Amino acid sequence: MNKERNLKFGRETISVQQARERLLPYIKPIQTEQVPLVLAFGRRMAQTIYAAHPVPHFRRSGVDGYAVRAVDIAAASAIHPVELEVVEHIPCGTIPLKRVGAGEASRIMTGAPVPDGADAVVMLEMTQTQEDGQHAADPTVLRGSGKKVWIKKALQSGNNLTPVAGEISQGELLLSEGTWIGAGVAAILATFGCGDVAVYRKPRVAIFSTGSELLDVTMELEPGRIRNSNSYMLAAQVEAAGGIPVIMPALSDHADQVQAALIQAFESADCVITTGGVSVGDYDVLVEVFGSWQGTLLFNKVAMRPGSPTSAAVWQDKLLFALSGNPGASFVGFELFVRPALESMQGHQQPCCEAATAFLDVDYDKGSAYPRYVRGTTRIENGCLWVRPAGADKSSIMVSIKDADCLIQLPAGGSGFRRGELVAIQMLVNR
Amino acid sequence: MNKERNLKFGRETISVQQARERLLPYIKPIQTEQVPLVLAFGRRMAQTIYAAHPVPHFRRSGVDGYAVRAVDIAAASAIHPVELEVVEHIPCGTIPLKRVGAGEASRIMTGAPVPDGADAVVMLEMTQTQEDGQHAADPTVLRGSGKKVWIKKALQSGNNLTPVAGEISQGELLLSEGTWIGAGVAAILATFGCGDVAVYRKPRVAIFSTGSELLDVTMELEPGRIRNSNSYMLAAQVEAAGGIPVIMPALSDHADQVQAALIQAFESADCVITTGGVSVGDYDVLVEVFGSWQGTLLFNKVAMRPGSPTSAAVWQDKLLFALSGNPGASFVGFELFVRPALESMQGHQQPCCEAATAFLDVDYDKGSAYPRYVRGTTRIENGCLWVRPAGADKSSIMVSIKDADCLIQLPAGGSGFRRGELVAIQMLVNR
Repeated sequence: MNKERNLKFGRETISVQQARERLLPYIKPIQTEQVPLVLAFGRRMAQTIYAAHPVPHFRRSGVDGYAVRAVDIAAASAIHPVELEVVEHIPCGTIPLKRVGAGEASRIMTGAPVPDGADAVVMLEMTQTQEDGQHAADPTVLRGSGKKVWIKKALQSGNNLTPVAGEISQGELLLSEGTWIGAGVAAILATFGCGDVAVYRKPRVAIFSTGSELLDVTMELEPGRIRNSNSYMLAAQVEAAGGIPVIMPALSDHADQVQAALIQAFESADCVITTGGVSVGDYDVLVEVFGSWQGTLLFNKVAMRPGSPTSAAVWQDKLLFALSGNPGASFVGFELFVRPALESMQGHQQPCCEAATAFLDVDYDKGSAYPRYVRGTTRIENGCLWVRPAGADKSSIMVSIKDADCLIQLPAGGSGFRRGELVAIQMLVNR
Repeated sequence: MNKERNLKFGRETISVQQARERLLPYIKPIQTEQVPLVLAFGRRMAQTIYAAHPVPHFRRSGVDGYAVRAVDIAAASAIHPVELEVVEHIPCGTIPLKRVGAGEASRIMTGAPVPDGADAVVMLEMTQTQEDGQHAADPTVLRGSGKKVWIKKALQSGNNLTPVAGEISQGELLLSEGTWIGAGVAAILATFGCGDVAVYRKPRVAIFSTGSELLDVTMELEPGRIRNSNSYMLAAQVEAAGGIPVIMPALSDHADQVQAALIQAFESADCVITTGGVSVGDYDVLVEVFGSWQGTLLFNKVAMRPGSPTSAAVWQDKLLFALSGNPGASFVGFELFVRPALESMQGHQQPCCEAATAFLDVDYDKGSAYPRYVRGTTRIENGCLWVRPAGADKSSIMVSIKDADCLIQLPAGGSGFRRGELVAIQMLVNR
């Protein structure tokens, strides 16, 4: 009993930063797997990609028009067009067969290889042929036909073409391990033939709620009882952090049963989250569980509002996050500790994103002995970021969580904050 | 031929806004479906939710401690604690059986119903009992045992409890149709017993690339040919916009085959995207297809850089977006036109997000006859948003797309822009 009482009231309070440091030794990259590129969007790369070839790997025309020698058209203008002989017609995907010599040009498409000899490409709009409009759709007409083209604009050597490796050099570092796979990354992977990609496995996260007042979401409301909303909120947060949420049956009030359920969950989960049961209440079962925990206890009090009883423990190298039970405290505790852990497991190199800054849009009079993490809503006005608390921000209030797009990080202190003060914020990914 | 030439060179140029207006009549909400809440994260609600009951539906204690009558403890202090008789012990999920009368208190947990008679809850830390620490874990000891508690702090009536409907009133509008389901929304849905949620079906989007230079992602590189990266880039964009991307086989250069392939795709797709083939090149097959298109042509030239030949057409009430083939132009065309369309189909009420503003971080010397949509990267410094072009922003350059987190919207004009000027930006969801 005294150990338990000590776990309730004799807790060592550490900072958010210290808590993160205690978690760090237990956060390791998870296994990897190969998946088809189309199934890899939104995941993180488990390999580093260097350019296997330059891009482009041929001199690429940037426009539809005529490949020319810049020197031949140095005097060209709309009034005095320069006449060239068209020696070839080069569609995309073909290889030029003829060298462009003095007084010659080759008809070329955007993306096609610029023929040897030519060092610039004139846009079609700056050219004219005798039969303009008559033969355009029939490439065979022009191929080596000796037709003429008139160039109406002078160009510099190199205009409207990309040299070999103009975009990417061979051997260049393209994508580091841990890179998030979005549209731009997908384009690079496809360019380099990565039909399958090595990505980090999605961590499985078991989510438990405690509290005998909790009803399952499908159950009828009863006096004094509420439906379990934390598990679903956390499941959405887990999914947004790249994990696979597994909502577990409600925990009982019996410490031995709870400990057994948690340990069993670790058999298939990479990480376990509980909400509630970590405070000073008589039924705060996690406190009792931690009283006889066979693994390592990392912390059980963090200098933060909400969620100061947020606790963490280790079971055979896996993390147990015991979040405070109020919806707001659960939400914040997840964002501060669980999200960075899950993202690190998936290779994210800097999961604790550097705080941004914004101007406080309202007076905030509540001082606090601990740093406060207030759910906030941002707006941009004239290039500046303003932030205000998202609705009622008491940690017991759930309805305003949906309106938050950031956490406002207010330092400890008794004086409150004035409108217009610069405050640190942490943007949220999921709302 | 003249019609086709007219489609190439005689195009009517309209603004981005006008193009969006022409699309509007063809963008309708898609069918809905019921899915379990755990599968609804990241989707949009197809129903509006009003509060079926107040929250809380009982007077809820906000702390662990003792439910009291504020009037009884008006004189309480640490030096002169007020003694009360403990008449009941109220765990969460139970219903209080006793009224708190004068000189009485009930032991109560966070989240439990405050008993009749009591109008405030004193935190446990502000109380003391004779046996503190001895009986705390055994609720039966206290229940109606006539034990005493000493209260060391005065409270106002209403302190540390939430009245019925203190958070949400019965009948209150909670979530509108079209709301995106994130963690905060999931918590609300669970609270109100929505184990299944009506959401909009994910639109199926067929993605075609044109160009005989294109190799499949798994193929070996060949001279003059490149792997198809646009289809994968667009697939990631479609997925980020809530759609189901379906990458289709490459299109041939034959207009009749292309038209047949597109029309067949519409049988199972809600929307079709093509890239390439819309410009003035001799092989720009989409132009030829549009020359004999049986449906409505909406536009084929938009006053924008990159992607001015971006086109759109209708086939039996479904939209065909023919994006310009350069990677940058495809990317921008998708964000400006396809994403808003897909999001509208899923119930998003304001898919063309209002532009934010940021300070230009560099001089930008390129003027343009058309408004320019430059891929940009933002940073926040002292509460202000700064933006610079993301790497090389030529529309043919693909490698820098991954670095863009916004589009910088630069108006038409020849003078360029100076560092520190305020510019409009549109934040991107996927990078």
